[in-house]
This record gives sequence, C-alpha cells and structure tokens, in this order.
Amino acid sequence: ARPRVGYFYRERHEPSAVAERLRRIRVGDFKSVPAVVRESVSIYEAIVAMFTQNVGSLIVVTEDRVLAGMVSRKDLLKAALGKNDLQQVPVGVIMTRMPNIFMTTPDEPVLDAARKLVQHQVDSLPVVEGFIDEQGDERYEVVGRFTKTNISKLFLDIGKA
Amino acid sequence: ARPRVGYFYRERHEPSAVAERLRRIRVGDFKSVPAVVRESVSIYEAIVAMFTQNVGSLIVVTEDRVLAGMVSRKDLLKAALGKNDLQQVPVGVIMTRMPNIFMTTPDEPVLDAARKLVQHQVDSLPVVEGFIDEQGDERYEVVGRFTKTNISKLFLDIGKA
Repeated sequence: ARPRVGYFYRERHEPSAVAERLRRIRVGDFKSVPAVVRESVSIYEAIVAMFTQNVGSLIVVTEDRVLAGMVSRKDLLKAALGKNDLQQVPVGVIMTRMPNIFMTTPDEPVLDAARKLVQHQVDSLPVVEGFIDEQGDERYEVVGRFTKTNISKLFLDIGKA
Repeated sequence: ARPRVGYFYRERHEPSAVAERLRRIRVGDFKSVPAVVRESVSIYEAIVAMFTQNVGSLIVVTEDRVLAGMVSRKDLLKAALGKNDLQQVPVGVIMTRMPNIFMTTPDEPVLDAARKLVQHQVDSLPVVEGFIDEQGDERYEVVGRFTKTNISKLFLDIGKA
C-alpha cells in the first residue's frame, strides 16, 4: 500500500501557494450552524433531534447555551441497546462531558481543526468562544460546529481553484 | 455569513498547480481497508462489528464478497429503537440495498469521490471493481472504502505541501 502521509510532499519541493493560503483560512469562514440539545432532554428526544437535524453528533448545552458535552450516534446506539429508560434518562447522563471535549474557535486555522478531527478520531468539533463567568471560571459559548463535511467541502473548493 | 463555495476561486485567477495535481490523485491511492459484514449476520452482530471496527458504516456483502448494500449507524440506531429482534433479524433486512448505493472505484479521481460524499450526504463510499457474473449481470467486488476521514487526511497533506 502506498503511504497516506506526505503524498503531496514527495511531488514538490518549493513551498506551495495553496498550502500557504490554506493556512490563513479560519474555522469561522467554514463552520456550520451548531446542532444543540439541552442536557436536560431525554435520550429519546436527543435521538429524535439527531434524526431531524441529520447530524452525526449533537452538542449538549446548559440552559444558557454554554458547552456541557457532546453526544454521538455511537453513544446513542449504545444507550439504545442498554437498560436505560430512553424516555426518562437525560442525555447529560450518557454524554461525553467537559473538560473531555475537543473544541475549536472561529479564529483557529482550519488545518489545525482538521488535525484535531483526524488525530482524536471524532467527526465534529464544537466551535466556541471562551468567557469568564461570575465565579471566575472559564466557560465556552457554542457558536458553531466544524466537521469532516466542512473539510470535504473546502477540499472540493481547492479542486476548483 | 461568507459563502462556502468558491472561497479559493475568489483569491486567484490563474489555474492552480495544486488543483491540477489534486485531480490526478485516485481513490486507490487513499482508500481504507473495507469494514464488511455478510448480509446473513444479525443486526446485533452488525452493531458489535461497528463498535469493534470503530467505523460509521458497514459494507454488506454476499458470501462471495460481492457488494449487497450498506448499513449506517443511523440505520442501526433506528433498528435498535424499533420492534426488531436484534439477535434474529439479519442486517440484510434493514440495509440500504443495491442498486441504491453510491460507489467509487480505485481509479476514480478523489475529487469526484469527494463530490459524491458531499452531494449525497453519506460518510462512506464502498470502493469496488465491477465484473460480469455467470448470468451476465454486472456485479461489484468490494476492495476498499473511501470516507470523509480519508479526505480530511489528504487535506492535511495539502497543508504540509
């Protein structure tokens, strides 16, 4: 099998104009609208939201739209197989919880966000803006999501350029 | 919001060397090993295979490794919520069946395969090689899979170039 990494590198030796331009593109230019649910909704409602919005994962937020966690199709599938009462148990119980969430920000270069998606094997990153709450703790307002679909669209753009 | 399409195009007007090189890269250079199950396995076994192999969709094949269909996490989640006996019902009953499957081939340009993934809103394409069986029908041997993860890795390569 041919190597997957460095395919481009092998072919050219001077710096590439596209690569340089690519490094200047930010997540904020290419993010999607966030697909969110409150952490108090039931697992069943989360599953319905996932089908309705046709996304692979949902961002879970507190009542004031602050990032609380993430829940994936895989998490929901596991829950559906288990002994949970899907109508009663809140999605907050099964989600991956902060601070164990990989995030990005509107001004992060898309290449760095893409690296997070690939390295951590997740399909989606919440796009957040940090702020300090009244208790002096750092919290994150959810302003978008960045996915492998966003990268695929950008990839198609490069092919047209 | 800024437009998502043509972001690159707006910045330059001469043909891009990277875009041209990109058009020469084939699916066969970047595909992954296929994650397959036989159409006779139960829905439950398919769910286990999906977790074990950590993939978002499985390629369903006949006994002789010919493409029969595809099953996604979404399909399995729907089945898990339904009235099916997951241990008894074969995955072939709930899969998306040929000829309703979007496919790619090892010699297709990655840009064309990427366009299929984005346009048809699927996460994965089976990579196939067509052949004619004894009955004179066209069938497809599964030789790999091509996903948005493959595109994301290629995208990272471009950034390094």
